[in-house]
Amino acid sequence: MPAFTHELRVRYGECDPQGIVFNANYLAYFDHTVTELWRASSIGSWEGMVEKGVDVVVGEANIRFRSAARFDDLITISASIVHLGTTSLKLELLIHRGDELLIEGWLRQVFVDVKSFGKTPIPEWVREALAPYVASADGAGE
Amino acid sequence: MPAFTHELRVRYGECDPQGIVFNANYLAYFDHTVTELWRASSIGSWEGMVEKGVDVVVGEANIRFRSAARFDDLITISASIVHLGTTSLKLELLIHRGDELLIEGWLRQVFVDVKSFGKTPIPEWVREALAPYVASADGAGE
Amino acid sequence: MPAFTHELRVRYGECDPQGIVFNANYLAYFDHTVTELWRASSIGSWEGMVEKGVDVVVGEANIRFRSAARFDDLITISASIVHLGTTSLKLELLIHRGDELLIEGWLRQVFVDVKSFGKTPIPEWVREALAPYVASADGAGE
Amino acid sequence: MPAFTHELRVRYGECDPQGIVFNANYLAYFDHTVTELWRASSIGSWEGMVEKGVDVVVGEANIRFRSAARFDDLITISASIVHLGTTSLKLELLIHRGDELLIEGWLRQVFVDVKSFGKTPIPEWVREALAPYVASADGAGE
Repeated sequence: MPAFTHELRVRYGECDPQGIVFNANYLAYFDHTVTELWRASSIGSWEGMVEKGVDVVVGEANIRFRSAARFDDLITISASIVHLGTTSLKLELLIHRGDELLIEGWLRQVFVDVKSFGKTPIPEWVREALAPYVASADGAGE
Repeated sequence: MPAFTHELRVRYGECDPQGIVFNANYLAYFDHTVTELWRASSIGSWEGMVEKGVDVVVGEANIRFRSAARFDDLITISASIVHLGTTSLKLELLIHRGDELLIEGWLRQVFVDVKSFGKTPIPEWVREALAPYVASADGAGE
Repeated sequence: MPAFTHELRVRYGECDPQGIVFNANYLAYFDHTVTELWRASSIGSWEGMVEKGVDVVVGEANIRFRSAARFDDLITISASIVHLGTTSLKLELLIHRGDELLIEGWLRQVFVDVKSFGKTPIPEWVREALAPYVASADGAGE
Repeated sequence: MPAFTHELRVRYGECDPQGIVFNANYLAYFDHTVTELWRASSIGSWEGMVEKGVDVVVGEANIRFRSAARFDDLITISASIVHLGTTSLKLELLIHRGDELLIEGWLRQVFVDVKSFGKTPIPEWVREALAPYVASADGAGE
């Protein structure tokens, strides 16, 4: 069961001449969903986190395209944290239209210091805020 | 006769389910063409200008859609400065595919101070750099 | 008073290095808002209209940038029809963040036959569906 | 040594508030590079291929972000086919700025019939056209 879900409407300009969402735009949907997960958690706004000295960059992204979302579809993006490491976490994301699974993917996100842009340990307050969204806390560092 | 031209290839992800360039993307083409005009002039790179203390924001944009560019079309965007005021300029832009006129538009661009983000007079060195791209220098302030 | 309003959250990928919404993306917001106005009216889904034989293309667009929307802002886009002609209509759009007006613009939209892509009169059922969103019905043809 | 390279200039609107290319846009660069590889091969234009009855959809995509491309960077995207199966192929893509490796990724692309949109074997003429871009032809089906 997914820890977090966000619903959105596919916009016309996000679709390509095949009439379906252009493949790169699913990554933009993932990114937007992460922001909304952050907001739902006690972290709150993304910029609020940045003001506290940490930011997050994507280290790796993977997407499997099973079926396509189309213009005007109402889609649900679910996200859960499957690994919460020392300086990075892995999020699994699924996109459904109703019961139909369209897209599976994951993101590896790396915490960085806002000033040096170098890797930094996930702060304790972020770790606690994200705990409710961890599918199976493994606690392993990396 | 246009003062500056830039050629580009329409990308798949820029097109919509009608098989044509999504309307908002023409504004992105305009923006990209302005950067290339700057580069062709003695201003050079956009960031070089910003480092010297001035930036440019769009004050107003207008686009008339006569015909559509399609995926894989090679299009030519021409730009000329039709008004060079005290703090702003007006650029006219045309997009052609071969001899066919597809899009007509214009941008009003306002010079701002990088620190205050308030309006600032166009610096003399920018004015000189842009002179070759002025269609009919009117010299009028605003 | 605007005839229709749509609220949306500015996404990170819609913003540029100045930290504000990239200018072309406001046109995409306009486009999305038109789809939502259609949905709110008795026209319903955009694709439902296309299946009935008419589509809409943008003839001209204008945007004035008064102030910028930023990442994570909740913005309200209001739209009203200020001219409902024989084959085209003009929509005025405003974008606010709270009480602050950020963007003013308008779109001239032209109805086309789905098969020929030539101009076609606005069907009576579309005209009736849009009537509640007309700011000042002038009834003038064009 | 890469089988195909394509050079492009990073556009302002492709960058995000961190001043770097927004992560989803690298997938759009990959897509555009595939179109250019097709054009360089004897397949020619993408639409020419579609008119012959086959199209290509992305089955899976992977991106590793090592370093970021910035506004105005001139970047080189290299692509080589590392697996040419019966109905799909795998492309490896690298993005460099000068000698610096910024992005590594791969795409699994699946050939589909234009009418049924079901998987279809890669036609012989496509296979021959792509042969020069195969890094290590393994000939294995899948």
